[in-house]
Amino acid sequence: MVYIKLTRRQEEIIDIVKKYQPITSEQIAEKLGLTRAALRPDLTILTMTGILEARPKVGYVYSKKGEDTFKYRSIKEIRVSEIKSKPTVVSENTSIYDAIIQLFINDTGTLFVENKGFLTGAVSRKDFLKVTLGNTDIHKVPVGIIMTRMPNIITVTDDDSVYEAARKIIEHEVDSIPVVEKVKNEDGKEMFKITGKVSKTTITKLFVELGKD
Amino acid sequence: MVYIKLTRRQEEIIDIVKKYQPITSEQIAEKLGLTRAALRPDLTILTMTGILEARPKVGYVYSKKGEDTFKYRSIKEIRVSEIKSKPTVVSENTSIYDAIIQLFINDTGTLFVENKGFLTGAVSRKDFLKVTLGNTDIHKVPVGIIMTRMPNIITVTDDDSVYEAARKIIEHEVDSIPVVEKVKNEDGKEMFKITGKVSKTTITKLFVELGKD
Repeated sequence: MVYIKLTRRQEEIIDIVKKYQPITSEQIAEKLGLTRAALRPDLTILTMTGILEARPKVGYVYSKKGEDTFKYRSIKEIRVSEIKSKPTVVSENTSIYDAIIQLFINDTGTLFVENKGFLTGAVSRKDFLKVTLGNTDIHKVPVGIIMTRMPNIITVTDDDSVYEAARKIIEHEVDSIPVVEKVKNEDGKEMFKITGKVSKTTITKLFVELGKD
Repeated sequence: MVYIKLTRRQEEIIDIVKKYQPITSEQIAEKLGLTRAALRPDLTILTMTGILEARPKVGYVYSKKGEDTFKYRSIKEIRVSEIKSKPTVVSENTSIYDAIIQLFINDTGTLFVENKGFLTGAVSRKDFLKVTLGNTDIHKVPVGIIMTRMPNIITVTDDDSVYEAARKIIEHEVDSIPVVEKVKNEDGKEMFKITGKVSKTTITKLFVELGKD
């Protein structure tokens, strides 16, 4: 397999076909002010990729095949909203012990912490392991004491690319980042509502998905 | 960007160009018993992808650009040997406490365990967290007691694809798998020497690498 970047003219052809399908190569050429011969290489590429389908005696149609899968999209075009997974959320006053139980029950690596419905922190397996080594009374001390607190949490939103999420995970050396929606609270302050997460597991699953034929 | 799968004829053209470069389209057409016109769409695709370069008045040459990067390779073609990272290895009689220290020092999620130079087990952050919650004396009990023991360790070898490694990580719900070399011990028994690891972090880093333009 090889990757190619579509030219602007090829993108234009796709738009024309989407709008006027079925459409013949003569009609496409006319709309672009080109000869059929000049258009031929572009149409070859667009049919080879499965983006357009050439129906004999009918013309070109746009193929949903290319749209519904990740196959014809670069990694940068896949959005967080398409692949985010369900976050495990606890409240700030949950005891460390109960939080660890949640971690095991949900088989997750990172817990996100909320207060009054807004994201306030995150705790990882590593944070928990560190605290269990010490003398902390994990049955009494709440998770709010040991969590990483906002604004020190790296976040993404639904519209960010998965590439961007993966880049942040690597750059900030975390296992998982929350997907948030930005809202104003009663005092007009910007707050974050958590709507999902992207973790190294999410990325690895996507990698496997992209690798399937 | 879009992906396309090269046709057998396009693969043949690449082989011909590699062997006889620089070579004109007439000469390629002749070798394949085709007309130049029949060949034109293939040559367009191969130059668009950067695999071939068309030099005016000289002919087609093969471009190294396409060979040296991941860009023109599918996920299934990338080998474990190209991206594996360094594993953190401890011996079976290391205490759980000392092993956890190694985990933090090396900032890793999984330790691999050896005995007499051969891989015998693996311990994850999750295993350690479970044991620190209990009454185990982590200063006295060796890591060999709590580790997952061979043959229950999923492994890959240098020649496996990264896709295969990622698939195993997801299927067996582990964070990291060891890369091994199979050797016979003195008794002729098949044993594994650890030469690296592939983790969800490795895959996420590769994902970021592939996403760069």
